[in-house]
Formats: sequence, structure tokens, C-alpha cells
Amino acid sequence: MRLPEEESAEGANGLKQKIWEIVFEAETPAGKFFDVALLWLIAVSVVVVMLESVETIQASHRSLFFTLEWVFTILFTAEYLVRLWLVRRKLRYALSFYGVVDLLSCLPTYLTLLFPGAGVQSLLVIRILRLLRMFRVLKMVSHVHGANLLGRSIYASRAKITVFLMAMAIFAAIVGTLAYILEKGQGGGIDSIPAGIYWAVVTMTTLGYGDITPVTTMGKFLTVFTSLSGFAVIAVPTGIFVSEVANAIEKEEEYTVACPGCGSSGHLPDARFCRKCGEKLEG
Amino acid sequence: MRLPEEESAEGANGLKQKIWEIVFEAETPAGKFFDVALLWLIAVSVVVVMLESVETIQASHRSLFFTLEWVFTILFTAEYLVRLWLVRRKLRYALSFYGVVDLLSCLPTYLTLLFPGAGVQSLLVIRILRLLRMFRVLKMVSHVHGANLLGRSIYASRAKITVFLMAMAIFAAIVGTLAYILEKGQGGGIDSIPAGIYWAVVTMTTLGYGDITPVTTMGKFLTVFTSLSGFAVIAVPTGIFVSEVANAIEKEEEYTVACPGCGSSGHLPDARFCRKCGEKLEG
Amino acid sequence: MRLPEEESAEGANGLKQKIWEIVFEAETPAGKFFDVALLWLIAVSVVVVMLESVETIQASHRSLFFTLEWVFTILFTAEYLVRLWLVRRKLRYALSFYGVVDLLSCLPTYLTLLFPGAGVQSLLVIRILRLLRMFRVLKMVSHVHGANLLGRSIYASRAKITVFLMAMAIFAAIVGTLAYILEKGQGGGIDSIPAGIYWAVVTMTTLGYGDITPVTTMGKFLTVFTSLSGFAVIAVPTGIFVSEVANAIEKEEEYTVACPGCGSSGHLPDARFCRKCGEKLEG
Amino acid sequence: MRLPEEESAEGANGLKQKIWEIVFEAETPAGKFFDVALLWLIAVSVVVVMLESVETIQASHRSLFFTLEWVFTILFTAEYLVRLWLVRRKLRYALSFYGVVDLLSCLPTYLTLLFPGAGVQSLLVIRILRLLRMFRVLKMVSHVHGANLLGRSIYASRAKITVFLMAMAIFAAIVGTLAYILEKGQGGGIDSIPAGIYWAVVTMTTLGYGDITPVTTMGKFLTVFTSLSGFAVIAVPTGIFVSEVANAIEKEEEYTVACPGCGSSGHLPDARFCRKCGEKLEG
Repeated sequence: MRLPEEESAEGANGLKQKIWEIVFEAETPAGKFFDVALLWLIAVSVVVVMLESVETIQASHRSLFFTLEWVFTILFTAEYLVRLWLVRRKLRYALSFYGVVDLLSCLPTYLTLLFPGAGVQSLLVIRILRLLRMFRVLKMVSHVHGANLLGRSIYASRAKITVFLMAMAIFAAIVGTLAYILEKGQGGGIDSIPAGIYWAVVTMTTLGYGDITPVTTMGKFLTVFTSLSGFAVIAVPTGIFVSEVANAIEKEEEYTVACPGCGSSGHLPDARFCRKCGEKLEG
Repeated sequence: MRLPEEESAEGANGLKQKIWEIVFEAETPAGKFFDVALLWLIAVSVVVVMLESVETIQASHRSLFFTLEWVFTILFTAEYLVRLWLVRRKLRYALSFYGVVDLLSCLPTYLTLLFPGAGVQSLLVIRILRLLRMFRVLKMVSHVHGANLLGRSIYASRAKITVFLMAMAIFAAIVGTLAYILEKGQGGGIDSIPAGIYWAVVTMTTLGYGDITPVTTMGKFLTVFTSLSGFAVIAVPTGIFVSEVANAIEKEEEYTVACPGCGSSGHLPDARFCRKCGEKLEG
Repeated sequence: MRLPEEESAEGANGLKQKIWEIVFEAETPAGKFFDVALLWLIAVSVVVVMLESVETIQASHRSLFFTLEWVFTILFTAEYLVRLWLVRRKLRYALSFYGVVDLLSCLPTYLTLLFPGAGVQSLLVIRILRLLRMFRVLKMVSHVHGANLLGRSIYASRAKITVFLMAMAIFAAIVGTLAYILEKGQGGGIDSIPAGIYWAVVTMTTLGYGDITPVTTMGKFLTVFTSLSGFAVIAVPTGIFVSEVANAIEKEEEYTVACPGCGSSGHLPDARFCRKCGEKLEG
Repeated sequence: MRLPEEESAEGANGLKQKIWEIVFEAETPAGKFFDVALLWLIAVSVVVVMLESVETIQASHRSLFFTLEWVFTILFTAEYLVRLWLVRRKLRYALSFYGVVDLLSCLPTYLTLLFPGAGVQSLLVIRILRLLRMFRVLKMVSHVHGANLLGRSIYASRAKITVFLMAMAIFAAIVGTLAYILEKGQGGGIDSIPAGIYWAVVTMTTLGYGDITPVTTMGKFLTVFTSLSGFAVIAVPTGIFVSEVANAIEKEEEYTVACPGCGSSGHLPDARFCRKCGEKLEG
């Protein structure tokens, strides 16, 4: 999203450069303020969309919501136009993920002018896409120390987690089919294999809604077996992830300085001398 | 809370000094006895408030509760006055967290004398604040070996846990909105985005009350996806915390050899030279 | 399942050899394509069996399901016959696990010709065995990096997990009996010891359907105790598995330096001499 | 329970010595067979007591249960008398935990002869104590490799787990009281502080029966907060236990052989040469 310094410097006079720094960068106080204000604006607009979905609240505050909606729409439109004006490759921004999301954040309200019959309510679904703008929160958060570590650990364990989820899916299919065979037509709600698989996942993950429960003795045996399996199996992703986090922390914090004397690494962060040969460390 | 030795020594004659040691210190047998007795008194008074909130019990033991209430009130009042008398900076204690809580522990019962119409019941809510005095339990517990370790680990992982909870919140908002779109007006109870988010959290954490459950096929797919995600995602805080606990234990238990040259500890188990001063280690 | 190169080379002319490579091996493009196509065919046929179990869908798409069923059956029959023709020890394949499953994948549809009264529906149970062919998916997956590691870790921790599940079973029996004593005839649903054990497992694993809940005060105390125990006890399998995964990762990723003298690997990161032959390490 | 060799040798002639070895030791084939047979007998008798508690089964198999009950009773009585005859300090055995449990395993059936009016059913509760004999299973299991490790890890982390459970209890008390304040008289079932605490524990542990659920908006907020806390907090006991298991495994498997040349330890199990000085290892 951030254009490299030189590109923006080329195509911008003094003012444009200044606005660029405010909108796209976070190093200056004004830039930081803009980012935080935008995040709050997005958060509040999302909360408003959420409250608007509650019928009783919507009924009693119709005009307030109407006003707020137009305030947010105008602000987001202004922001979108400024961004479009600032970037050099306008089409590329307009077609990027955030570009599309930014556009969809303001478009629905204008559509209600064109199709007044549809009303604000029917376009609620699209306005909900503003939620996606909240990923900017996560983007900012990625500057925070811990987030990088988390991201790297999740990325590093993605293959193992995928294998694990596939094995879980096959296990759920088998348990769900068994449940269907045992419970079919018993009135417990497991009257098809998909229903059985839904029940199996709800049981394996120890979610346990209770909307579908086994009624036969064999079905209860299956429940006991499945939930205990789930209980033991939850250890698997934990094991994978713990190892990755431990690995990432180790790499980051402990094993970075090499001894100039003997080349050994693995010194504690505050070590000043090599623990192998007694040489002074430089890092 | 504990005034330093010298301060108390200045402003106290022999008796006051002795009472000080009993009330504020835990090293002498009398001081230890006072602490334990107070903890039991608080625990019993909290249990009484709890039982009083059960209507059937309250109705049949009205006079017993009345008596007990006054006994606790008088004891807590006496304790409050003694503490106020002992400390030098009386206002500072009175306005401190424990000072306010100590006052609120005895005040409500006196208020029933001034406003007899209100009755004991209506002030129950305030008397419940005695619960906060139970933190003194945790304070004592902090002398226990393991508690320090736990505290340090939780403190060390607070940034990562915060990032994790924020990501969870955004995930819950997105899943909850999806659920609202899929289940709106289907009779499953997800009739607003906040209700959808409530459902999403209940599902992600595998809490699964079953008061709100999806009824459409797509909603059930979303349930399967969400609960499996929650199942995998619970590994994340575990991974973070496990690493921190392991770190803390390692630092505490294994790096115990002290350097004969500079006295620093925290050397890796196989270190042969001090990482602070380069001196040869003996352990 | 894979015959060794030399065996297949002996008993096969050029064409048979070529078909062998396509059906049984995955190294050539054609072989890889065959494997992936077969997996998709199995997956789709399993989904069809699942949808067929939903009565409303089955009622409205009877002829489509009928056609699809015969398509799958003919394809699976052809595959079965080709495999039987290719392998040298035909009886051994026919009686092997996959051989029996492959046969059962196509047999039920033919049986409906012999016993038309029974109809397709009544043989659904057998056709479900096609699910077992999905284990071929896992077999392919075992080539993926992470899967080996997972498998090894689970295998390594099997003894500890077994001990853990036995202890859980005895704990569930004791808690379930206690629940029966406390709740018998109270209308909460725990009217026999097996029901109590079912409730205990549902509670311990934090599954919590809510179909059976305690109604007495003592029963609720037992619930609090049991669920907190389960909450703490879930740490046990996690602890076991995390250690095993960490072990497996360590062995795989870190001990990668090979000895120049004897070629053995698996040395600790800070090893300076080979632990097999005493040769100096270079890495 | 096992008398030392010399004690039994003193007071036993040849036959008594032989029976002693069968009943109390597990090294000889006969002793092993006796142990396994006894375990099966206990397991079957426990299952019979469980089935007897199911009213429909009890009604239709009354005479079978009656016969089985007497068979078990006579066998357990014989075992009890033989044990009593074999041990030297008879009173000590009779008053020991297993002695009392062994006696209670056979006594209830005889009491039905003395008080025929009470019937078999009313003494079910005592016969359930046979369950406790199943701890012999765990005792045998303790010979298995993994069990020791598990036991040691749980023992090592007991202080930290206790602190953790105390903190959870105070947290549950505070959340439960808050829930009571928010939900009192709203029809959600939280009509007293104990009910609130029960709800808090059910929510924190993600058990989620659904028998008590919040109905107010604030109560649902509290649910979201509490279940997310529980979700994050479950990481704490896991972290503690994982560290202990890892510690125990490390101590047991990897760090046992010391180098005769340089005294360093921490060699891999299959190491033949010291990784520090190249000296041959002896272990």
C-alpha cells in the first residue's frame, strides 16, 4: 500500500507530499493521529452497523442512524478520493484488496439514493464489509513485538495444522456415519450423514450445543469415545504450535550473537563473554 | 500497605508497636495467627453474603443472618479503626484501594440503621465488595513458591495475549456477521449482528450453551468451521504461555550457579566461563 | 501395496508395466494424475452417499443418484479388476484391507440387482465403507513433511496416552457413581450408574450437552469440581504430546550435522566430536 | 501391602510361601495370572453393579444378578480370608485402606441375609465401593514406563496447580457475583450468588450446559468476557504441566550418562563418545 519514498517524492509538490505523509505514513505525529482517528472511525461505524441490525434499536433511532450513516459515508468517500489522488498508480490501488474494500465502504449509502425503494436496511449486508477495514488494525498491530512472533509461528506450522485438520475431517466423517447408523430414526436428530458429521464435529471439539444428542445406548458410548478422543486430540495442534513458538522465541531472543573467538552461539541475551572460551562478545 | 520498620518505630510506643506487628506483619506467631483468622473471617462473611442471596435460605434464617451480619460488621469496624489508628498517613490509607474496600465492608450495615425502610437486602450489592478483600488471600499466596513464577509468566506474555485477544475479537465479529447473514429470520435466534457475535464467541471457545444454534445448512457449515478453528486456535495462547513458563522455570531452576568472580548467576548449564566477567566458573 | 520394482518387471510386458506405473506409482505425471483423479472420485462418491442419506434430497433427486451410483460402481469395478489383473499375488491383494474395501465399494450396487426389493437405501450402510478408501488420502499425505512428524509423535506417546485414558476412565466411573448417588430420582436424568458415567465424561471433557444436568445442590458442587478437574487435567495429554513433538522436531531439524568419519547424524547442536566414532565434527 | 521377603519367609511353610507368591507377588507366571484374573473379576463385578443400577435391566434379569452377586461375593470373601491368613500383621491389613475396601466388597451381600426386607438394591451404594479396588489397576499400571513420569510431573506441579485453582475460585466468585447483580430476577436462572458461581464455572471451563444462560445484554457481554478469559486461562495449567513433563523426560532419558573423561553429561541415549572431549562413554 505504501508507495516507496522516491516515487511519492517525484510526483508530489510540497502539499501533496505532506498529505501523503499524513495519510500513508505513521512516523510523524500527524500521520499517527490520522491512523488512530481512522481506526476509531472504522470501529464506531462498524458498531453502528451492528446496532442497526438489532430491530428494536433500529426502530427507535431511525433518524440518528440515518444521519450517522451519511456522516460516515462522506468521511469515507473523502478518504477514498484523497487516497486515489495521492497514489500514482490509481487503477492498481482501485483494484487492490483495500481499494475495493474502501470503495464498498461508501458505495451502499449512495445506492439508496438511486434505489430509494430498497431502503438502508437491504444494503446492510454490503456495509458490513467495513468490518474488513478493521484488518488495518491488525496491520498496525504487526508493529507490536509479539505479533510478528505469533504470525511466524502460525505460518511455520501451517503444513502440520493442515494435515491435522484433514485427519480430523476424515475422523469426523467416519464418526458421523457411525452415529447415523446407530441413531437413524431414533428421534435424537441424527437423521442423515451430514447431520451425523455436524454432531461429530460438535462433540469432538467439545462444543456440545445439545441441539442434537444421542438417545440410544450405543450412541452414548460413541459420545463418550468421541469426546475423550477430542479431549486427547486437542493436544496435537497445541503440541505443534508450542514447538513452533518455542522455536521462534529461541531463534529471536537467545541464539543470535556468535563468539568472535570460537564462533559458538547460543549465548544468553545479556552475556558479555563467551561461555565456551571466555572471549569477549561483541553483539 | 506495610509501613517500613523505621516509620512505625518512630511513631509508636511499645504497645502500638506490638499491635502493629500483629496487624501488619506476618513474621511473628501472633501476626501469622491474625492474618489467618482474618482470612477465615472474610471467607465466612463472604459465604454468608452468598447464602443470604438464596431466597429460600434467607427467608428461613432471617434472624441468624441478622446477628451474623452485625457480628461481622463490628469485627470489621474494629479492624478498620485499629488500622486507621496504627498507620501514620491516615488519609493515604483511607483513600487507598484496600482502605476503601475495608470501609465498604462495614458501612452498608450501618446504613440500614439510617434508612430502615431499605432493609438489609437492598444493600447486599455493596456488601458483596467484601469479596475484594479476598485478594488478601492472593497476596499471602504470593509468598508461595509457584505463584511468583505464574505471575511473572503471565506478565511476560501479556503483550502476545493482548494481540491474540484482539485478533479473536475481529474474527468473532466477522464470523458473527456471516452467521447473521445466513441465519437472519430463520428462527435460530441469530437476529442481529451482536447476537451473531455472541454466538460466534460461544462457538469459538467451544462453550456451546445451545441457547442459540444455527438452523440452516450453511449455518451448520459455519459452526463446523468455527468450532474447528477454535479448536486449533486454542493452541495459540497455550503455545505462548508454555514458552513463557518454560523460560521462567529455566531461568529460576537451572541457571543457579553463581560466578566466583562477580557473583552473577543465570549461566547456561554447560557454561564454563562467566558471561559477565569472563571468570572461570566452578559449579 | 506397491510391489517392488523387480517383481513387477518380471511378470509384466510393456503395456502391463506402463499401466502398473500409472495405477500403483505416483512418480510419473500419469501416475500422479491417476492418484489425484481417484481421490476426487472417492471424495465425490462419498459426498453422494452422504447426500443420499438426507431424505428430502434423496426424494427429489432419485434418478440422478441412481445414475451417479452406477457410474461410480462401474468405475470402481474397473479399477478393482485392473488392480487384480496387475498384482502377482492376486489372492493376497483380494484379502488385504484395501482389497476388501475396494471390493465392498462396488459390490452393494450389484446386490440391488439380485434383491430388487431391498432397494438402494438398505445397502447404504455398506456403501459407506467407501469412506475407508479415503485413508488413501492420508497415505498420500504421509509424503508431506509434517505428517511424518505428527505420526511419530503420536506413536511415541501412545503408552502415556493409554495410561492417561485409563486413569480418566476410572475417574469417570467414580464421579459418575457419586453423581448417581446424589442425583438418583431427582429428575435430572442421572437415574443409573451408566447414565452417571455418561454425564461425568460429558462434564469432564467440558463437552456439556445439557441433556443431563444436575439439579441438586450437591450435584452442582460435583459439577464445579468435575469441570475444574477436567480443565486442569486436559493439560496432561497436552504436556505429553508437546514434549514428544518437541523431541521429534529437535531430532529432525537440529541434529543435522553429519560426521565426516562415520556419516552418522543426530549430534547435539554444540557437539564437537561424533558420538558414534569419536571423530571431530566439522559443522 | 507387600510384606518383605524375609518376613513372609519366616512365618510361612512351603505351601503358604507358594500361595503368598501367587497372591502378593507378580513376578511368577502364577502370580501374574492371579493379578490379571483378579482385575478382570473386579472389572466384571463393577460392570454388574453398574448394570444393576439401570432399572429396566435390573427388572428383567433379577435372578441372574442375584446369582452373579453371590458368585462375586464368595470369590471376594475367599480372597479376603486368604489375604488375612497370609499376612503376619492381620489387624494392620484389616484396618488398611485396601483391607477395608476388600471387606466392604463382600459384606453388603451378607447383610441382605440379616435384613431381608432391605433387599439387594438398598445396599448398592456400598457395593459400589468395589470401584475403589480398581485402583489396583492403576497400581499395576505404575510398572508401565509412562505412568511414573506422569505421576512425577503431576506431583511436581501440585503447588502451582493449587495456586491456579485458588485464583480460579476467586475469579469465579467475582464473576458469579457480577452475573447475579446483572441477571437477578431476569428469568435466566441466576437468582442467587451460588447459582451465579455455578454459572461462572460452567462458562469459564467452556463446559456450557445451557441450563443457566444469561438473558440480559450485559449478561451476554459478561459471558463473552468470561468464556474468552477461560479460553486464554486454560493455557496456564497446560504451561505449568508441559514444563514439568519436559523436565521429567529430560532428566530421565537424556541426561543420565556422565563422561568419564570430562564429567560432562547431557549425551544422547545412543552416544558412545563424549561430545565435549571425545572420550569413550561407559554407560
